[in-house]
Amino acid sequence: MTAIRTDTNGDKPSLQPLFDMLAGQMQEVNSTMIARMDSEVPLIAELGGHLIAAGGKRMRPLLTLAGAALVGADRNGHEKAIKLATAVEFIHSATLLHDDVIDESSLRRGRHTANSLWGNEASVLVGDFLFARSFELMVETGNINVLGRLSNAAARITEGEIKQMAITGVPDTEMDAYLHVITSKTAILFAAAAAAGAEIGGGSPEDIAAMHDYGMKLGLAFQIVDDALDYAADAADMGKNTGDDFADQKITMPTIIAWQRGNADERAFWQRTLGEAAFTDCDLATAQTLLANHDAIALSLAAARDYAHQARDRILEHCETQAEGDNDISPAIGTALADAAIFAAARST
Amino acid sequence: MTAIRTDTNGDKPSLQPLFDMLAGQMQEVNSTMIARMDSEVPLIAELGGHLIAAGGKRMRPLLTLAGAALVGADRNGHEKAIKLATAVEFIHSATLLHDDVIDESSLRRGRHTANSLWGNEASVLVGDFLFARSFELMVETGNINVLGRLSNAAARITEGEIKQMAITGVPDTEMDAYLHVITSKTAILFAAAAAAGAEIGGGSPEDIAAMHDYGMKLGLAFQIVDDALDYAADAADMGKNTGDDFADQKITMPTIIAWQRGNADERAFWQRTLGEAAFTDCDLATAQTLLANHDAIALSLAAARDYAHQARDRILEHCETQAEGDNDISPAIGTALADAAIFAAARST
Repeated sequence: MTAIRTDTNGDKPSLQPLFDMLAGQMQEVNSTMIARMDSEVPLIAELGGHLIAAGGKRMRPLLTLAGAALVGADRNGHEKAIKLATAVEFIHSATLLHDDVIDESSLRRGRHTANSLWGNEASVLVGDFLFARSFELMVETGNINVLGRLSNAAARITEGEIKQMAITGVPDTEMDAYLHVITSKTAILFAAAAAAGAEIGGGSPEDIAAMHDYGMKLGLAFQIVDDALDYAADAADMGKNTGDDFADQKITMPTIIAWQRGNADERAFWQRTLGEAAFTDCDLATAQTLLANHDAIALSLAAARDYAHQARDRILEHCETQAEGDNDISPAIGTALADAAIFAAARST
Repeated sequence: MTAIRTDTNGDKPSLQPLFDMLAGQMQEVNSTMIARMDSEVPLIAELGGHLIAAGGKRMRPLLTLAGAALVGADRNGHEKAIKLATAVEFIHSATLLHDDVIDESSLRRGRHTANSLWGNEASVLVGDFLFARSFELMVETGNINVLGRLSNAAARITEGEIKQMAITGVPDTEMDAYLHVITSKTAILFAAAAAAGAEIGGGSPEDIAAMHDYGMKLGLAFQIVDDALDYAADAADMGKNTGDDFADQKITMPTIIAWQRGNADERAFWQRTLGEAAFTDCDLATAQTLLANHDAIALSLAAARDYAHQARDRILEHCETQAEGDNDISPAIGTALADAAIFAAARST
């Protein structure tokens, strides 16, 4: 039995410890991504290279690797986890490509989006290709449970995107509807990615459930922060167009808070902008002022922190319980996961 | 040992015998489609209903059911074949939805396309949903080989679509490049659908290979006829916009024949229209005249017939060989498959 650190790095939570522990495997995920985007069709390799260069945090594949590492996967388990992690990132990349078509976005993480460079057709088709290839990778692991878990997540993501369309332009959307949307479109893939890692690594049903719950809460925190930063950040810093969500009439936690706390004039403003897209030049500045007046960004970030704490507590409690039994749980990975959760909610501040 | 009819219905080949033999199961495919498009998101069920009502020949799921029936699948095999057949039709429907976005087509089989009714966003997302759900259905059969076969086909389809984009607007495309495109975008799914049926039904490697080859040749015949009819048919009869491919600058067998046989003036015409999209009012009529002058439609249909005969011969020879051994091959299904192949290439005339 090993003593578990239940404290995290406190004031300075970071993704770094988790990344450092899994750096070699993350490198293998990267090379697997490149190898599996290989195609006799040059456009696929080209667009694939663009996606890899664009990078991003790679949180989802990291969770899959961490799930396998947490339960003490053997070499075979790690190899399969690398394939699954690649599959998870491909599913995510496919949805990004399709999102960019839908949103007609031209900038993501400070780089031009694929559709602005190659056109919508290529984005739709290469997204489909990555999606199909992700299933090929999963098939290679030979684990039908994991296939079921991730194909179900993929279906739920698209349901989430469609639900998001349904609340788009509806400023009086209820908070529950928003949480429902982000659960489907973001948190479920985080949960499935984390659980799939624990499952392929040979974890117990309790390990799988803990990673699933951890991923779900972390995913919620992650998306809420993303939505809050869309209004808060400087476009140059963020590598994202500030106000994109506003222009797209997307309803997110900050706008729901501002609507709920707003007076009749303010609601008329949200109705004209988010509701009817009758935008004028200074509307984004006005929106940011209204959000600030109602602490909408701060309250959203607080909600994200709350989910992050739930994620941290879930994984630490699981590690504590398991440490008492006879198993291969890695306390170091457990602590790094706890830190990563807090970091995900703190990345703005 | 059973005697095999090596003749087909001769002058009047038809899909009807195959459909009649499998009518009950095709009905189950239909109800499975409806059940699996069920979603808490109303748009999915609505758009799904539209797809089911639009119908089509359902050749691909029919091939899956026929593959299982050919090898004498038991009740359990048939149940799994119904799930696979539904998955295959979902993959096909997903690609149709995405194609409609790419082609910006407003009419398919005489009905408005989903994207013209619900918008591109919905078509992209519901396509993704159907794709994900098709994998869920495959997972339920528990057969990892079949999953590999169909996920590989799905990746190849998107490669085919991208290759098609690459030859679009290039009137001097070689015939081989065209055949490569339609192999990927159409024939491979026919082959995988047919082979998956034989595999899930418990067929031997020889049975699976025969159905695979049969499906491949049938798929080629099917697509060539489709491409030829795009110039030949009356829009009202066909339920398709005649000249769609022309307007979209698609390069197909008839245009390649006309280019290869055309003089300098004719090539200048194809370059202006298919090459540069500098269309004027009477260009479609001129194109049809040039195609007729070079027998381009008739030669295309003859090529389709040739592939159809190869499909027929492959399945009949397999049935003859197998009839000498101790196995469960159904000669009636073999004959009906042979008829279906000839019908697929004759549906124009």
